[in-house]
Amino acid sequence: MPTNGTTAPPDVPRGLAGVVVTDTGLGDVRGREGFYHYRQYSAVELARGRTFEDVWHLMFHGELPDAAARDAFTAETAALRRLPAEVEEVLPALAGAGGPGGPLAGLRTALSLLGARLGFRPLYDIGADRRRADALAACAAVPTLLTALHRLGRGQRPVAPREDLPHAANYLYMLTGSEPDPRSARAVERYLISTVDHGFNASTFTARVIASTGADLAACLTGAIGALSGPLHGGAPSRALDTLDAIGTPERIDPWIRERVLAGDRIMGFGHPVYRTEDPRSRMLREIAEEFGGPRVAFATEVERRVEALLAELKPGRELHTNVEFYAGVVMELSGLPREMFTPTFCVARVVGWSANILEQAEDSKIIRPAARYTGPPAPQPVPPA
Amino acid sequence: MPTNGTTAPPDVPRGLAGVVVTDTGLGDVRGREGFYHYRQYSAVELARGRTFEDVWHLMFHGELPDAAARDAFTAETAALRRLPAEVEEVLPALAGAGGPGGPLAGLRTALSLLGARLGFRPLYDIGADRRRADALAACAAVPTLLTALHRLGRGQRPVAPREDLPHAANYLYMLTGSEPDPRSARAVERYLISTVDHGFNASTFTARVIASTGADLAACLTGAIGALSGPLHGGAPSRALDTLDAIGTPERIDPWIRERVLAGDRIMGFGHPVYRTEDPRSRMLREIAEEFGGPRVAFATEVERRVEALLAELKPGRELHTNVEFYAGVVMELSGLPREMFTPTFCVARVVGWSANILEQAEDSKIIRPAARYTGPPAPQPVPPA
Repeated sequence: MPTNGTTAPPDVPRGLAGVVVTDTGLGDVRGREGFYHYRQYSAVELARGRTFEDVWHLMFHGELPDAAARDAFTAETAALRRLPAEVEEVLPALAGAGGPGGPLAGLRTALSLLGARLGFRPLYDIGADRRRADALAACAAVPTLLTALHRLGRGQRPVAPREDLPHAANYLYMLTGSEPDPRSARAVERYLISTVDHGFNASTFTARVIASTGADLAACLTGAIGALSGPLHGGAPSRALDTLDAIGTPERIDPWIRERVLAGDRIMGFGHPVYRTEDPRSRMLREIAEEFGGPRVAFATEVERRVEALLAELKPGRELHTNVEFYAGVVMELSGLPREMFTPTFCVARVVGWSANILEQAEDSKIIRPAARYTGPPAPQPVPPA
Repeated sequence: MPTNGTTAPPDVPRGLAGVVVTDTGLGDVRGREGFYHYRQYSAVELARGRTFEDVWHLMFHGELPDAAARDAFTAETAALRRLPAEVEEVLPALAGAGGPGGPLAGLRTALSLLGARLGFRPLYDIGADRRRADALAACAAVPTLLTALHRLGRGQRPVAPREDLPHAANYLYMLTGSEPDPRSARAVERYLISTVDHGFNASTFTARVIASTGADLAACLTGAIGALSGPLHGGAPSRALDTLDAIGTPERIDPWIRERVLAGDRIMGFGHPVYRTEDPRSRMLREIAEEFGGPRVAFATEVERRVEALLAELKPGRELHTNVEFYAGVVMELSGLPREMFTPTFCVARVVGWSANILEQAEDSKIIRPAARYTGPPAPQPVPPA
């Protein structure tokens, strides 16, 4: 039945799969090629050769910074890490019993409050400079919020940010209270760069739908965090480590995997809806893991090798490879991140991608508002008396 | 350029306008007819003849309750009005400086916290009964959260809910601290019923996108509140009262309107993207206003009469009529609601519509995830050395 007085509705795939809702200059995922990019650059090459701040600048400004711009941008974002006192004082009451949503539910609440306290205004009521300033403030504060909530939930005092450390190193510093070794800091930095953006996923789309109403930046980001917390969104690197733990030892790999595959279970850490090749993030993260070395990495690569061989045997033609979760979990573990901080760490990076999408959407002025088709009993029927 | 390895993307209208993304049994808007319905019943007829709880039951359960079901549902929801102590204690820190987002930013934060404290779990990890229980808890608590935040922001103590009052009357009671007169309570109740749902607007769509990831109910509602706070979403009845105030006196109506229309300004409270006839909500709300009577109502109806005449003269063929905002503002003012609580009052009703949409979406298992088309410079280009 036509809705809203329109003629017959367009026939689109379920869940809008493949339906193009917007143009973007931010990047793309080319699944067949096993390639994804931010602006015109390979994301993996950026992770190999650039800092997180460089990529953040690229996403917000459309170009990599030169030396002077890098210094200015790094100083500008570092100065925004400290929280307003009215937010800091409330965090103990938001930490801890975060419920099953855990750290993401805490971040959702804290970032909503931060936006209100920083006076974020509707996107369409302010200019591009103010929108960018709000986005920088939100992205700079997310690591501070997440680490403070994590420490408070364990009965520890939050660690104040240091302005002299790079974004990734300062995140690890606030988490543990001690300056990270350079290898861990750089490993986490490369992981963060590689997860800033990845096509038009459900949380990015959510951020853009809310932005299209002209709501403030915190409203958009709060919705995106909510979407990310959904089990169908993906992005839970701890699940892949759970697979490694469940297998336990090398001789158990084959029977464990055979049993799961024959029962029709999905093997966490393997397979991707878009990539038909190896996930390019997985390849880079494996290299980082191999720089650490040690028995855990040897076991992980052995699991990968055997699972790929068994899947090729049991599900021929399916092209199932490790996805980003598999080695992301290994790298974060090697870098000293506790497992409950894996998904929050993903947020530290992705908030930059969401924000870049929100800033891009704000240049448009068309609300994203599709339609539904009523399929219930014919209306109106008389309302029976109470 | 094809994304994600698909072939050429479907060509859909900008902003997905008119694109059907889901089937729904919850209702529809028939713009040409000036008619909208919840399930199979006229929403306006429901507002005239039923209680808010009846309509809430209809939206959640698919049918109007009989006497026994009404009593049980009313008792069940009334018992959920009181807030958990851990939430109540935090509210003073969330009230007040809500920033330009004001009460909606406060509700966004408070409802996010409530969901975490009540242990809301991902929609896809729980059954329909638990999802319904979470939705009831959220909807029942919204008036308590909103009135507490409002009073705290003005230096007043929150008023605890009363279980013996109907939903609408208890809302007014918590706001003012005294039991409302029956006419005001019933006026607000009819307003609330008439705004429970209204087709597939941007906040409802946002709630369903987040729900499609399987995220918890608070994640979905937090995103919906964010979308509602956007200036393009609409739903700001205070703007129509601002129009009345700006005009001031009957003899100023004609020059004021002529000046605005000739300058190309929109007249707040007039015109609707879907209705080509009078907004059916407007008609009902005018009747309610006329039951109150008095000079304010006489002035409002005179403004309506003159604006419609002038718009017909200056913009012939445009069919511009009062929309829901116009008389909603008048009715809420007459019922004793302060202007800053107009949009929050809208939320008291709409949270039931959002929740019904979330519960319906949770029966589906397909993530809503469209695509974007990359239009930037060709990638990859070599990453310049840092």
